[in-house]
Amino acid sequence: MLSSLDVMTILLSVAALLGTARLLGELARRIRQPAVLGEIVAGVLLGPTVMGRLAPGLATWLFPATGPEPIVLAGFSHVAIVLYMLVAGMEVDLSAVWRQGRPALLVSLGGMLVPFALGLGLGWFVPAAVGAQPHVPRLLFALFLAAALAISALPVIVRMLIDLNIFRSDLGMVVVAAAIVQDVTGWLVFSAVLGMMGAGRESTPVPTTIALVVVFAGAMLTVGRWLLNRVLPWLQAFASWPGGILGFTATLGMLSGALTEWIGVHAVFGSFLFGVAIGDSRHLRERTRVTLEQFVSFVFAPLFFASIGLRVDFLRGFDARLVVLVLTVALAGKVLGATLGARLGGIVGRQAWATGVALSSSGAMGIIFGLLALRAHIISERLFVALVVIALATSSLSGPVLQRLLKTTQRRRFVDHLTSKTFVPRLDSTDPAAVIGVLAEAAARASGIDRVELERAVLERERMMSTGLESGVATPHARIEGLVSPVVALGLCPRGADFDTVDGSACTIVALTLTPAETPNVQIELLADIARTLQDPRVRADVLAANSYPELLAALRTIDEAQHDKRTDAARPR
Amino acid sequence: MLSSLDVMTILLSVAALLGTARLLGELARRIRQPAVLGEIVAGVLLGPTVMGRLAPGLATWLFPATGPEPIVLAGFSHVAIVLYMLVAGMEVDLSAVWRQGRPALLVSLGGMLVPFALGLGLGWFVPAAVGAQPHVPRLLFALFLAAALAISALPVIVRMLIDLNIFRSDLGMVVVAAAIVQDVTGWLVFSAVLGMMGAGRESTPVPTTIALVVVFAGAMLTVGRWLLNRVLPWLQAFASWPGGILGFTATLGMLSGALTEWIGVHAVFGSFLFGVAIGDSRHLRERTRVTLEQFVSFVFAPLFFASIGLRVDFLRGFDARLVVLVLTVALAGKVLGATLGARLGGIVGRQAWATGVALSSSGAMGIIFGLLALRAHIISERLFVALVVIALATSSLSGPVLQRLLKTTQRRRFVDHLTSKTFVPRLDSTDPAAVIGVLAEAAARASGIDRVELERAVLERERMMSTGLESGVATPHARIEGLVSPVVALGLCPRGADFDTVDGSACTIVALTLTPAETPNVQIELLADIARTLQDPRVRADVLAANSYPELLAALRTIDEAQHDKRTDAARPR
Repeated sequence: MLSSLDVMTILLSVAALLGTARLLGELARRIRQPAVLGEIVAGVLLGPTVMGRLAPGLATWLFPATGPEPIVLAGFSHVAIVLYMLVAGMEVDLSAVWRQGRPALLVSLGGMLVPFALGLGLGWFVPAAVGAQPHVPRLLFALFLAAALAISALPVIVRMLIDLNIFRSDLGMVVVAAAIVQDVTGWLVFSAVLGMMGAGRESTPVPTTIALVVVFAGAMLTVGRWLLNRVLPWLQAFASWPGGILGFTATLGMLSGALTEWIGVHAVFGSFLFGVAIGDSRHLRERTRVTLEQFVSFVFAPLFFASIGLRVDFLRGFDARLVVLVLTVALAGKVLGATLGARLGGIVGRQAWATGVALSSSGAMGIIFGLLALRAHIISERLFVALVVIALATSSLSGPVLQRLLKTTQRRRFVDHLTSKTFVPRLDSTDPAAVIGVLAEAAARASGIDRVELERAVLERERMMSTGLESGVATPHARIEGLVSPVVALGLCPRGADFDTVDGSACTIVALTLTPAETPNVQIELLADIARTLQDPRVRADVLAANSYPELLAALRTIDEAQHDKRTDAARPR
Repeated sequence: MLSSLDVMTILLSVAALLGTARLLGELARRIRQPAVLGEIVAGVLLGPTVMGRLAPGLATWLFPATGPEPIVLAGFSHVAIVLYMLVAGMEVDLSAVWRQGRPALLVSLGGMLVPFALGLGLGWFVPAAVGAQPHVPRLLFALFLAAALAISALPVIVRMLIDLNIFRSDLGMVVVAAAIVQDVTGWLVFSAVLGMMGAGRESTPVPTTIALVVVFAGAMLTVGRWLLNRVLPWLQAFASWPGGILGFTATLGMLSGALTEWIGVHAVFGSFLFGVAIGDSRHLRERTRVTLEQFVSFVFAPLFFASIGLRVDFLRGFDARLVVLVLTVALAGKVLGATLGARLGGIVGRQAWATGVALSSSGAMGIIFGLLALRAHIISERLFVALVVIALATSSLSGPVLQRLLKTTQRRRFVDHLTSKTFVPRLDSTDPAAVIGVLAEAAARASGIDRVELERAVLERERMMSTGLESGVATPHARIEGLVSPVVALGLCPRGADFDTVDGSACTIVALTLTPAETPNVQIELLADIARTLQDPRVRADVLAANSYPELLAALRTIDEAQHDKRTDAARPR
């Protein structure tokens, strides 16, 4: 059915989209921005906006507008988004909402009602100015805009809270609970709007569609949830482990999506709710969750977000006035509304503002929302582009603003202070003083502070009590006057340095930690991080086998960090 | 681009294919058959063979022959097979071939040359009788048939060797090494045949295509391998972990596939060789390998194998005479050839025959081979159906035959002797004798042997020395005269029974093991299995939380068994 040329083009175009999206996604993460920013930009580069202008021949060859290729790509992106929403739904923990109670409810209400009202007003009074399609009923458009301004991006918010080290705080939990309520409600309202547009079966009357949406949501979150919780142990007992659950989850997610598509709303609503239902089961194992999440986040999601740029010309659609207008309204509504709710819920001062800021990003959800509305011909390309820009801007800004507001620091990791200069792959001496000398030399090169001074301070501390741990890790350290930022030098000593550990074992990994004298906490944080990271024997074995700085970094990154932080330490009791 | 109805149909058809394939795949595994058997049958049920005959209306509704749906499905199945071959390539461990040396080489040569010669003869002398397409040059068809009879199915073979507990044996290692050589050579020859067919660029002369294939293979296995081994630590150090590697691997696999498709052979050849190259790197982490393998094996592969049945009518294409003829030739060639090679390599008696039988299954590889040849119009639908039947028959048969030949037993697991009747979720007493009494009662019901007798035997053994382990697990046991097959009864005792452990801890998990008196080894195997399985504290925690038999089984299956067996104990030094 597909010719050899078709197959080649499909593979090439998918590889180009995925590769570019992943590359720019990684770059975005390195500058502490959400990956979706890079993924969208990848599509903009490969689509009509950039490549279509600069190299139209290449663009048509790689992404032909006719033939089977665009159909296959569209099919991929639909399945990708259905799976993405399934995974997003799995992040939703309904019980967190109950646990946070009144403050969470007030924050989510404030953060929804105010932007909803503003969006409704904007859409009702000046629909043309904000990019309504002429044939769309005014109320529908206003409702859509209201829902679009009220939704928030749970995955982006969770990631940001973890980065700022406040995911486990009371504030963090209230924000997550509020975002969950906003997500679920936002999708319900949007689904109702889609139903009213009669995007699906033209023959079904609107009230029937809306009733079906509500019945479906209710059934999925009660009966569906109960049933899945029953079926999961049975599947884990009798089907292949761990892969059996994957195929089962993907199948039911797609069926659920097909059902909502049949009802007349988009498939993403069905798979999202299915994700919520299955994610809530205490029987869903971490292993299954992570495998699905990793594959979807790093293969399907980049493909989907990049493919958006293929169909939309972001230059032609860019309308600065519209962007500024909608961005202002969105931010004002979200921040003011949620802050108000927080104050009513008893959260005071900067914390209340922080709640508002944390909830202001619309991220991936805003983009998906906009795309579906564009496809359903509810909004113009101008408004879609504005919604994407707003989603990216709010996601980029809320983190830094929050950090200033709360004066928190990003969590310190000792790897952030390691450099290729301060890694010594082979220490030949087994004498602690000599080992410290070599590492101090490396630290001196990296910090510009005199080696002798560093060495003296560390040895002085070492004389008070040996820093050798039982695991074979030694952590000599000192606070240094005039040091600007921490320096960690790590050396491997295969023969084992005699650091006088409790159990008499020799130390094969020596991590020298130097911190500025004026910030005593930093030393404690870094030493704890070193001990925690190197307590796993497999990590130590990988570290010891490292011959180069990249290999060392790779060895130190065995734990899936975000997952680890979220689950182990954290608020979810499963 | 896709209408709402299209999206619904695509989701429904993908869900139907995946769901049915997974369901029948699981059933196949339960009767100890390869999953691919169930997956192919799923497609036969949903395609023209069965549903097309019984419910043609439903078949056309679910799988329309026109419009975007079949194009999207074809696109999916192409990408799926490219990823499947990538993962299959990752299984290939080239260094295993060198380690096994002469015997492996002789076995693979014998196992290739004899079927190759028979296939060549059959294809050359009676092409029409074995289903050649009339317009195909006789030599080409003969070469294809030769390669098809010579290829073997590495994944099926590995799985079978693990099941029979001989993966680690010398015999197992020789078989795996030989299968690797046969796979790589088989694909090389087939790619050359495809190149000669000019399936790709008609303008490229045949010698050029073949030269390019050889250059590509050579470059990928030398420069490509070296480069990937260099890039991987760098990626693991700087990209998102663990997902970053997934996107990278999928991208390069598809690019590699596109390149071979451009050369004029099929994309699967490129992704397979890329898989070999990246799988060979010692820097590829187990975590990445398993995530990719699980997702591909349980989502993409079932989709692909089931989709085969959608386009082929297995009833119309079934030709019993052809099946018997090709099956006989294939089996005779494979078994005799490999056995001969084994004898020349110094393997004697039954072991030599076992080598031949183990290598006889063509499995998934045979099916993919046939499908590509069908699409390239080299073979008729009749021969394709015959090749599928042969692939399934050989994969089903080789396991049982091998078991008889070697008189091995499948490895015993204590879970296989647990039943819902012998699981006691709550033991109230903390007295060992009372606990043993309750479990003996359950074992008596399951075995039909008198409770008093069982109890007495177990208590007698217990008096000699307590069976309480430090981990809080007690393993009372006895050998029983007249017992037909082992019985394991497992009880949970949250209050802790006083089994007199070394460290004085109470036992919360009590596993009573009764084995026939005449097979003393079975007792040792089962007790070792219990101790090993329950030594992981997370497994014990999950077991203790189990309220029902399925929950118990799920808790006991936390380890990915096949992976575990293959990597930890085994021959691969990474």
